[in-house]
Amino acid sequence: MCRWLAYSGSPVLLEDLLYKPQNSLVVQSLHSRLGAEETNGDGFGVGWYGDPDTPGVFHSIEPAWNDRNLRDLAGHITSGNVFSHIRASTGSPVQQTNCHPFRHGRWLFMHNGYLAGFRTVKRDLALAIDPSLFGEIEGSTDTEVLFHLALTFGLEDDPPAAVARAVGLIEETGRRHGIEFPVQMTVATTDGSTTWAFRYSSEGRSRSLFHSADVTTLQQQYPDNALLHQLAADAHLVVSEPLGDLRGAWREVSESTCVTVRDGAETLTAFVPVAPALV
Amino acid sequence: MCRWLAYSGSPVLLEDLLYKPQNSLVVQSLHSRLGAEETNGDGFGVGWYGDPDTPGVFHSIEPAWNDRNLRDLAGHITSGNVFSHIRASTGSPVQQTNCHPFRHGRWLFMHNGYLAGFRTVKRDLALAIDPSLFGEIEGSTDTEVLFHLALTFGLEDDPPAAVARAVGLIEETGRRHGIEFPVQMTVATTDGSTTWAFRYSSEGRSRSLFHSADVTTLQQQYPDNALLHQLAADAHLVVSEPLGDLRGAWREVSESTCVTVRDGAETLTAFVPVAPALV
Amino acid sequence: MCRWLAYSGSPVLLEDLLYKPQNSLVVQSLHSRLGAEETNGDGFGVGWYGDPDTPGVFHSIEPAWNDRNLRDLAGHITSGNVFSHIRASTGSPVQQTNCHPFRHGRWLFMHNGYLAGFRTVKRDLALAIDPSLFGEIEGSTDTEVLFHLALTFGLEDDPPAAVARAVGLIEETGRRHGIEFPVQMTVATTDGSTTWAFRYSSEGRSRSLFHSADVTTLQQQYPDNALLHQLAADAHLVVSEPLGDLRGAWREVSESTCVTVRDGAETLTAFVPVAPALV
Amino acid sequence: MCRWLAYSGSPVLLEDLLYKPQNSLVVQSLHSRLGAEETNGDGFGVGWYGDPDTPGVFHSIEPAWNDRNLRDLAGHITSGNVFSHIRASTGSPVQQTNCHPFRHGRWLFMHNGYLAGFRTVKRDLALAIDPSLFGEIEGSTDTEVLFHLALTFGLEDDPPAAVARAVGLIEETGRRHGIEFPVQMTVATTDGSTTWAFRYSSEGRSRSLFHSADVTTLQQQYPDNALLHQLAADAHLVVSEPLGDLRGAWREVSESTCVTVRDGAETLTAFVPVAPALV
Repeated sequence: MCRWLAYSGSPVLLEDLLYKPQNSLVVQSLHSRLGAEETNGDGFGVGWYGDPDTPGVFHSIEPAWNDRNLRDLAGHITSGNVFSHIRASTGSPVQQTNCHPFRHGRWLFMHNGYLAGFRTVKRDLALAIDPSLFGEIEGSTDTEVLFHLALTFGLEDDPPAAVARAVGLIEETGRRHGIEFPVQMTVATTDGSTTWAFRYSSEGRSRSLFHSADVTTLQQQYPDNALLHQLAADAHLVVSEPLGDLRGAWREVSESTCVTVRDGAETLTAFVPVAPALV
Repeated sequence: MCRWLAYSGSPVLLEDLLYKPQNSLVVQSLHSRLGAEETNGDGFGVGWYGDPDTPGVFHSIEPAWNDRNLRDLAGHITSGNVFSHIRASTGSPVQQTNCHPFRHGRWLFMHNGYLAGFRTVKRDLALAIDPSLFGEIEGSTDTEVLFHLALTFGLEDDPPAAVARAVGLIEETGRRHGIEFPVQMTVATTDGSTTWAFRYSSEGRSRSLFHSADVTTLQQQYPDNALLHQLAADAHLVVSEPLGDLRGAWREVSESTCVTVRDGAETLTAFVPVAPALV
Repeated sequence: MCRWLAYSGSPVLLEDLLYKPQNSLVVQSLHSRLGAEETNGDGFGVGWYGDPDTPGVFHSIEPAWNDRNLRDLAGHITSGNVFSHIRASTGSPVQQTNCHPFRHGRWLFMHNGYLAGFRTVKRDLALAIDPSLFGEIEGSTDTEVLFHLALTFGLEDDPPAAVARAVGLIEETGRRHGIEFPVQMTVATTDGSTTWAFRYSSEGRSRSLFHSADVTTLQQQYPDNALLHQLAADAHLVVSEPLGDLRGAWREVSESTCVTVRDGAETLTAFVPVAPALV
Repeated sequence: MCRWLAYSGSPVLLEDLLYKPQNSLVVQSLHSRLGAEETNGDGFGVGWYGDPDTPGVFHSIEPAWNDRNLRDLAGHITSGNVFSHIRASTGSPVQQTNCHPFRHGRWLFMHNGYLAGFRTVKRDLALAIDPSLFGEIEGSTDTEVLFHLALTFGLEDDPPAAVARAVGLIEETGRRHGIEFPVQMTVATTDGSTTWAFRYSSEGRSRSLFHSADVTTLQQQYPDNALLHQLAADAHLVVSEPLGDLRGAWREVSESTCVTVRDGAETLTAFVPVAPALV
């Protein structure tokens, strides 16, 4: 459906993340290797953290591969925390308010996958969103609803718990409407300091997700790789698909897993949805 | 906020409606005379009826004044029932799904004005929309919610009654939230045969609305006016502001009035919102 | 690089041409089978002839596959002469003035391929354009230059001769600049009555081009094919690649050939560039 | 026609330049006070210098007033040398390649005004452009031609002399074609260190141009003005119209003048076109 990339570490030029790798996100916009769709041309987005409290977001409804603004901005913006997403719409309109990452205060959120039967469950899910958050919704994607459910359930305090409750609610709601596998997702969210990434699907056959191996080890392994040696030791990437063919550089994230990247270190924990009844 | 035009009568070239008049809608996009805003450059839309069951709709997020596609389409499309709208956003995003006219089956709907405090009342209003219609909403305007409330209350059977109930509900909901004047609107809707236009505001100071005088009389009055003589005797226009300075050509629609145009004849009736309690 | 379709015959709904076929042009925008590029997402265009003297043109910089305006217009516009083109840019900007078909008066022109080393030869070619036509150029594609060279050499009087001279000039100019194979093209042009399509490349390895077999024969061959039986006996299509898998429906146009469709009949003639010295 | 702003001085947040002033450039996009057109809604552009050798450029075909990307980028980009431009097209298409500022290597260039009868003189002017620069032209504005003429005549070595020769050539060419007043311009160009701004028209009635008074003096004069006290002592602005009503803050640039801002100091010199014969 889509492809995304989450970077955290020492500040890098966006160009180095989005254009330089062999199988960069911009390359994936035209020719994704592992995506459900090969082409991800229904808009894109970049979110990055700088000096201000709130992250910057740039959204476009044009394909990433030929976007000149993206190329220029990527050549001039440096950040230590970057989210980027290319979209293959599954039906909802191609408009900036449907482009990821979504933002709420200091938080960014992006998603690859879908909520099955979204049109059917949309109203029930919308009602479960905190009334004070309801007015914030501007687009028409399932992702924006998922994000606001997670916010409703405390994303800003405990992201894994909030996402678990949001997914639990969506699964219960979906099943009540006869949907066998309500959730298909790889999701990333960040407050600018810590990044959480989730791989999960009701069916147990989730979209691909990878995280980068330890950079220091890689640098020793590949002493001549210039790109690697540009990366700081604290660099971490979570991506829909590997950005290149370097052996050992990418590890698949297991099903039903949450990856947490904080202070240059990664933690993997099991991700289990929490049904509403159990809350 | 916006400006619009509703035409019904013998088929005309869209160009004659949208470009030829001295104060045409395209002119108004850059320099409206009577609008709350002089510039209406936040996108536009055209809806027209042809052979298919459903009307065609063309939406654009660019200003109308320099849009080459609009000029070309207007030069090639002929229709006997045309809605056109230019937008001045009051805050909601400039995207095609926020452009008027909105469509549901054979129906078109467009609006100039606003629902006051929309962010505050949006959730309550959304909940009042028929669940089977809820999933259809794709944009984020107050107008799309107003349209779906009217559909919920039977727009397809009795438009004046349905709009009266929708407005009544919005007023009651708004007042419950402390909003003094919840509705400001001139609205037009059509099923392709009959057109209904409404001028109303809770405050009793509604946006401007005019309808065209009888074309036959005008033709006698102005024997040399080529544009007039192109129009068929059955032509009726309802517009946010006069398309020119011809004396006698335009009559203001009174406050709290519904104009119905059917089979080449116009009827004016009082428009009174119906509060939910009274239904 | 691109894909295109030229239809002439009894009036058809654009939707039947652009959406209904199994391998329609809209399908090709996402997944071309025979194109140099699989994705043709850098804008598109449609040109069609109706009542006015000049054909209508609709250009968009967004991919065709999710464009809602295209779908609506295609569902409402009927024409007996239609050009449509989906673009995969080879470097020039994605902007409406670079979208095909190009128009000059009653004429349309579209192209798949490229002029090799265009940046190098652009100035020399631009100087060869008739000064009275020079000011008309609005975009930055090689195709617009090729079109204006053909106009310079009499496209409106004798299209095959004019295109032969334009190609001859481009080849001579290119070779002077050390370009081995200056022209790669399948081109179509029409005045609304006759359509001329060319398949040619300096290298002798041109982009794919097909024309439709005789519709009457096909209808007899496939008595149950509804789509075929909708087409009038005079329908002719020239396309970058077959619109479906029907055996016998599509014949490849040979290298260095001009297909002329006039009054429901097709003529194939050899296409040979004419070098400037020989004029 | 258009409005622009050129800033040089200590690094500032773009937001402070483009949004904060009472009559900011974004305000002017909707309601210019002194422009030939009140509305400047046909796209905009921002160019800024950061760490890379080449300035960044962001162009959009949408009006500036509601552009969310511009707002976000302005809130995150800081630069000591900023060009920004809002466009009111005088006929050429609304496309990114027609948006100012234009860029060549380290150089930016922007323009308010027009070359009279551009369609007539375009070919002669294009031929005068250095052949090695000709292939760079991507849009269809008079400004891009003016810029490339200035580059041809040595803009990178001596901007005032190069602009004088470009203007001289355009005037001579125009007059040969019977154009009385060929040039109307306020122009700014920069290499990222020095900024040159020109006010000139063949007619001697040029579009408005202002430069900022000495900031230190202003700060003493207005001890309570927060915005002023944010500006560094070395801040210089050249603008199409004052950004506010502060008395003494803005001085009109005289007719036929070049303003040079270098190392925090301003020089005013006479600007006199140089006719080609005299070179």
